[in-house]
Amino acid sequence: MPDLDLLPSDLPVVRTVADLRAQVRAWRAQGLTVGLTPTMGALHEGHLSLVRLARTRTDRVVASLFVNPTQFAPHEDFEAYPRDEAGDAALLASAGCHLLFAPGVEEMYPAGASTTVTVTGVTASMDGLARPSHFPGVATIVTKLLNQCAPDVAVFGEKDFQQLQVIRRLAADLDLPVEIMGAPIVRAADGLALSSRNAYLDTEQRAIAGRFNLILVEGLARLRRDVAVSDVEAWAVAELLTAGFDRVDYVEARTPADLGRLGPGPAQGPTRLLAAAHIGRTRLIDNMGD
Amino acid sequence: MPDLDLLPSDLPVVRTVADLRAQVRAWRAQGLTVGLTPTMGALHEGHLSLVRLARTRTDRVVASLFVNPTQFAPHEDFEAYPRDEAGDAALLASAGCHLLFAPGVEEMYPAGASTTVTVTGVTASMDGLARPSHFPGVATIVTKLLNQCAPDVAVFGEKDFQQLQVIRRLAADLDLPVEIMGAPIVRAADGLALSSRNAYLDTEQRAIAGRFNLILVEGLARLRRDVAVSDVEAWAVAELLTAGFDRVDYVEARTPADLGRLGPGPAQGPTRLLAAAHIGRTRLIDNMGD
Repeated sequence: MPDLDLLPSDLPVVRTVADLRAQVRAWRAQGLTVGLTPTMGALHEGHLSLVRLARTRTDRVVASLFVNPTQFAPHEDFEAYPRDEAGDAALLASAGCHLLFAPGVEEMYPAGASTTVTVTGVTASMDGLARPSHFPGVATIVTKLLNQCAPDVAVFGEKDFQQLQVIRRLAADLDLPVEIMGAPIVRAADGLALSSRNAYLDTEQRAIAGRFNLILVEGLARLRRDVAVSDVEAWAVAELLTAGFDRVDYVEARTPADLGRLGPGPAQGPTRLLAAAHIGRTRLIDNMGD
Repeated sequence: MPDLDLLPSDLPVVRTVADLRAQVRAWRAQGLTVGLTPTMGALHEGHLSLVRLARTRTDRVVASLFVNPTQFAPHEDFEAYPRDEAGDAALLASAGCHLLFAPGVEEMYPAGASTTVTVTGVTASMDGLARPSHFPGVATIVTKLLNQCAPDVAVFGEKDFQQLQVIRRLAADLDLPVEIMGAPIVRAADGLALSSRNAYLDTEQRAIAGRFNLILVEGLARLRRDVAVSDVEAWAVAELLTAGFDRVDYVEARTPADLGRLGPGPAQGPTRLLAAAHIGRTRLIDNMGD
């Protein structure tokens, strides 16, 4: 049997791949199916919706908690990224999660680790340009987590829409025997997409952030009215700056599945409008579509 | 049940991942273990030794046959690479193989495939320099084959020693639940390492090729006598050219596990002597060690 610690929330936690596999093997021996929801902790209702979705599809749900250093650039917020394992465990337990996998960095990247998974195509734009080392870091850790847990279903949020397409791509291309599910974005009352990084915002910044989703709603409506893609993108950038954002990395209308470019004329067919913008030192992303 | 063609040799062959998985699942349901020996066909006694080794460790042995285009550079011999599926199947059957997995290029690389597995460190020298696109191609196809078949054990020949270390590395780093086994080099009567590319050699070239292993034997003996690594490497390069090789890509003494550099002074500890050299348009590799 795996070595299970009990956190105050009574959610079992394992810290090694061997213990994770032992628990999954025990479930499989009982004929149970397994879901996985990878997280970096600092959990909010968006993460819990992933756990609940996984529960509707599988008998047992594992949540992983690992703040993955390789998907942060040196100047990004790896050190500052919020960490509260006990609080996260209590939230996961409340959402019906069955097991927390919370490995240390040495367990995930032992000395000598030197393999990277890279995805071209869907990473060639947007966050792939703004954060060049980000998606190789994501693709590698997700490949590892999927192989470590070997779930039937893995659930990822659509808030990180480009990441979701990267993960769908690598799972197909590397023949991982898992179903990748996307889960809808969970939003605050004013429509702001829930994000662990929202915790960085002060009151004034939080008010500005609340405008982000409204500008995308209006941008999507303009695309539906056959306004040219390039005009909508330029309009949304200007609106974000007017709203108080300090810098806009991108606003782009793309095909949902392969994130191909639309426009410059009116968008044809399914469209996703994706954006990233900064308020002070905080970078927010959001997206919206069919 | 999978869709099994029978070749004239009566060896069942599957051509899709779905059929491969169906057969492996059927075996697993009977409690049988599974071994995999990936090949590019043009089989010789070296490959058959891998099948036999896999049989000593597992109940059922799958051989894959796929000439992987992504591990050949444009100027290399992908088109000319020898192909004889019926002959290969007969040899595999004679060695006790249970199933041939022989997919087409479209099955392995469907439209849109855009994921690559890269390994640094062990690929930073020798064939990783001489053939820059080679190991990413190997690492990606092997990751795919291991995920497609999900064997308990996979066997690779030590003739491609650097490749073996790349595969050990990616299997560990990506947490593939498989044991990677190396199999000793099988040699002709004069000591030439068996290789599908030996078929390219004419009689005169074949005689020159037979000197390759003897020079490595003597090089290794010199390393054992505490001759400086850099002197042994330079001596071996000169000997190969004297023997009639037209060009030497490298002769290098390395640590076996991580292929780290030894020398320039006498070699300390376990040592592998690896070399690549050309006769006419044919490139041969060999290695020897503790």
